[in-house]
Amino acid sequence: MKLGEGVEQAIHSTLLLAGLDRDGVLPATALAEFHGVSASYLLKHLQALTNAGILASVPGPKGGYRLARAPAAISLLDIVLALEGSAPAFRCAEIRKQGPNPLDSQFFARPCAVNVAMLRAEQSYRAELRKVSLADLRTDPATPLGAAIEARGCAFLEQRQRRSTSTP
Amino acid sequence: MKLGEGVEQAIHSTLLLAGLDRDGVLPATALAEFHGVSASYLLKHLQALTNAGILASVPGPKGGYRLARAPAAISLLDIVLALEGSAPAFRCAEIRKQGPNPLDSQFFARPCAVNVAMLRAEQSYRAELRKVSLADLRTDPATPLGAAIEARGCAFLEQRQRRSTSTP
Repeated sequence: MKLGEGVEQAIHSTLLLAGLDRDGVLPATALAEFHGVSASYLLKHLQALTNAGILASVPGPKGGYRLARAPAAISLLDIVLALEGSAPAFRCAEIRKQGPNPLDSQFFARPCAVNVAMLRAEQSYRAELRKVSLADLRTDPATPLGAAIEARGCAFLEQRQRRSTSTP
Repeated sequence: MKLGEGVEQAIHSTLLLAGLDRDGVLPATALAEFHGVSASYLLKHLQALTNAGILASVPGPKGGYRLARAPAAISLLDIVLALEGSAPAFRCAEIRKQGPNPLDSQFFARPCAVNVAMLRAEQSYRAELRKVSLADLRTDPATPLGAAIEARGCAFLEQRQRRSTSTP
């Protein structure tokens, strides 16, 4: 089981965007530069986040991305599902229907016990991710790590954020 | 996030093997036939299960596969990790080290809060899978579904299981 590496890029991008001023946006190229990743690859993920209503995209030469809602209202689950899709990790193909002597069709009205157990585990995974918001992930700026993260983000945003009055 | 389709095949194969007699083994071709799947593809999964100590393989023309331990001692987690590997689904590349203004190296002694949260969710997923054994997945043979599953498995094993006295 493997999540795409875009998940890490997406989470850290949204965390950086959480530091924008109210009227600020940040272009995809700046987000890619900050994280040292490919802009074209990141753009795909930013579009997925926009399609999922996590980011808002302001078009035009002064445009860019901002969060579409408050950091406390964006969970890790929202971001993972936006990038990876909402289909369960375990896809039951009902192989009990296959082979020379399949089970009678009457038994497929209810899901297979294997599928039920696999989905229950994934529900537990998703419930944990749902509990953690971008606001929770902000490190306390009173700690040395938190201060360093904030200083790094602020210095970058100071230089690169654009001011936009357009409604996304 | 997606599990390989081999996971379903592996779980149902081990469930079928749980019905073997004490000295019985089943060749990979029979397991593939029962489930209507590719034998060469299934073989790869059976080898992974054998490497993980879930199956025992008896070589030779009368050989085949059997469970290496009791159904109650084989969990869904054992099977998933055997096939998918034990690396976490979220692989932290520490992208905070990248870009033109990376965080100072002193901060990487402790894992990133994003990684901690992602791993915590996966621990919860794994804990749920660890709770479910092959024994738990056996459907009560007193129910119509359980009786049908048992009859289907028994009829097939009756025909296709081989007797082996070799120690796997």
